[in-house]
Amino acid sequence: MGLADTRFSNRRRALAATLAAQRIDAILVTDLTHMRYLTGFSGSNGALLLRKDLSAVVTTDGRYTTQIAEEVPDIKATIQRRVGPNLLEGLEGPQRVGFEAAYVSVEEFKKLEEACPEDITLVPVAGVIEKQREKKDYYELQRLEEIALLANNALEDLLEAGELAIGRTERQVAADLEYRMRKAGAERVSFDTIVASGPNSAKPHHGAEDRVIANGDLVTIDFGAHLRGFNSDMTRTFVAGEVTDFAKEIYDVVLEAQLAGVAAARPGTALYDVDRACRSIIEDAGFGEYFVHSTGHGIGLHVHEGPSAAVTGKGYLEENMTLTIEPGIYVPGKGGVRIEDTLIITSGAPKIITPMSKELRII
Amino acid sequence: MGLADTRFSNRRRALAATLAAQRIDAILVTDLTHMRYLTGFSGSNGALLLRKDLSAVVTTDGRYTTQIAEEVPDIKATIQRRVGPNLLEGLEGPQRVGFEAAYVSVEEFKKLEEACPEDITLVPVAGVIEKQREKKDYYELQRLEEIALLANNALEDLLEAGELAIGRTERQVAADLEYRMRKAGAERVSFDTIVASGPNSAKPHHGAEDRVIANGDLVTIDFGAHLRGFNSDMTRTFVAGEVTDFAKEIYDVVLEAQLAGVAAARPGTALYDVDRACRSIIEDAGFGEYFVHSTGHGIGLHVHEGPSAAVTGKGYLEENMTLTIEPGIYVPGKGGVRIEDTLIITSGAPKIITPMSKELRII
Repeated sequence: MGLADTRFSNRRRALAATLAAQRIDAILVTDLTHMRYLTGFSGSNGALLLRKDLSAVVTTDGRYTTQIAEEVPDIKATIQRRVGPNLLEGLEGPQRVGFEAAYVSVEEFKKLEEACPEDITLVPVAGVIEKQREKKDYYELQRLEEIALLANNALEDLLEAGELAIGRTERQVAADLEYRMRKAGAERVSFDTIVASGPNSAKPHHGAEDRVIANGDLVTIDFGAHLRGFNSDMTRTFVAGEVTDFAKEIYDVVLEAQLAGVAAARPGTALYDVDRACRSIIEDAGFGEYFVHSTGHGIGLHVHEGPSAAVTGKGYLEENMTLTIEPGIYVPGKGGVRIEDTLIITSGAPKIITPMSKELRII
Repeated sequence: MGLADTRFSNRRRALAATLAAQRIDAILVTDLTHMRYLTGFSGSNGALLLRKDLSAVVTTDGRYTTQIAEEVPDIKATIQRRVGPNLLEGLEGPQRVGFEAAYVSVEEFKKLEEACPEDITLVPVAGVIEKQREKKDYYELQRLEEIALLANNALEDLLEAGELAIGRTERQVAADLEYRMRKAGAERVSFDTIVASGPNSAKPHHGAEDRVIANGDLVTIDFGAHLRGFNSDMTRTFVAGEVTDFAKEIYDVVLEAQLAGVAAARPGTALYDVDRACRSIIEDAGFGEYFVHSTGHGIGLHVHEGPSAAVTGKGYLEENMTLTIEPGIYVPGKGGVRIEDTLIITSGAPKIITPMSKELRII
């Protein structure tokens, strides 16, 4: 077995240990992100049954016969259409078998129940794999750094090529940025690119529309790339032409808040304290009511995953977690600023994997 | 109320009539595609409660306060975080309230149950809105035609620009095609673009990798664009340079099958007969074992939706349904051909909304 197998079997071992503590004998994994995390399988239909003794079975349908053998060489695969129920049918009880209650629909659950032998008890499992995924291994951190840098450099190149400019539409800029990421090897965007100019910059969830970038605009670009399962996420805000006093003022406040958030992102720090580090600076500057979202989130196989640096954030940062720090100020009708980095939490200062300068840049 | 409101209220009226026949007093719609279909709301969190008397409430969280008022002017909106449970809390019974069993997770269902007053009975509803969505209204057909043509023309332009050529990688071609769709106004791709060359063309679910297109290759391009909720889907296969006897033979068979499928796509035809029309030609030519998927599917707010033209297809085609006709032959190690159009079923011959020529084209 190669390196890849060790990585996945290590994850399965950690999961089995957690489940054993909950007196669960086996778990049926049907969420495809979790299946990929635990086995390496990247197809669009499949399931994993993992027992507490670490023995396992995977299953998928006929489209992926070759792929599952290549991607999951260390687990026996069966080829069947109804992947979840098929893995339960052959079980011998009595056993408590976990299922993913947050992902299995009521309709699917009924099919699982029908497939279960009588002395199998289905037990809802929630948040366990998600929690495990919060701390990344070295392979994951490398992949995340790679895709974050690819996206970061695409934005640098866009700026150098003069493609972010007065007179261009938000949509044109978004298309050019996505094209650069794609040419650099990204499989796709990790979410719809945001290019929000002028009054649109005051809408945190604006997309990219036909508005033409004009002199004096704040222009927020929030974007990411996806490669081999992993996602990136970063935001920079620029000023087009003339820098108004308003733009300068809120930019400086957001940047100060962002740097404070980054400085606070150390192992052992409470997640609400990371949020507080950013938020207190924005509040003290009198813009508290305009910072309408939380400070940051983990990123990995999903763009948004744990931990959550929010007012209500629970728990503490740990080494090898990822976290975005993305404070913003959004003044309706006038404009907004958001600055976002993705960090890897280390034993010392966090590693910023979105290295582009955060100094105010005029386009 | 403008035109938009009539469109959505008509859909709600049709749904309410179907549910009344199942003795359901109200339905809680939590699937976001269905919410968009029934109200026009395009945000990422929300729910609709529709009663049999057609009165309705929508809810979303604070991010979408303005958006829901703009997009859904004809239904009262409440702003709350836990959208599903909040809509159930205030209900007065006794009532049978439907929920979407195929989309509500076991975990979410528990929260719905907890929020329900005692004399409210939650009733699983499955496939009702999906079935209704199969027949498109005029607005939907126009949007689908628009996005299909946008994508179709992007491929035409790519060919004219010589960007599909020997010496280029699959990934470069995919990036260029996606860029052209994006520049033409598409919000994103409707699925990951397939550019499958040479032996890769024998894999129906190949993506786009670093393989360089070579003389003699079959090159299959399967792609689509997304705009304002609607998706497109089409496939063409080309030959690079020299046309081998093998390529010519399977191309001709697939094209004949595809034309037969299109000819069969009339209202009143059984779905398995549409599949049969394609499949029998491929079987008769001796390639039956290499046509490893079904003939076609509906398309709309999802890339894949009903009806299904498959060996096991149930039901009949009706006017104003959409359907892809996409037979293929995939000979492992040698290569494959797939040709796919999207059709609108009319009272007469189907309208092909992916008009690019299907004659064998050499690049």
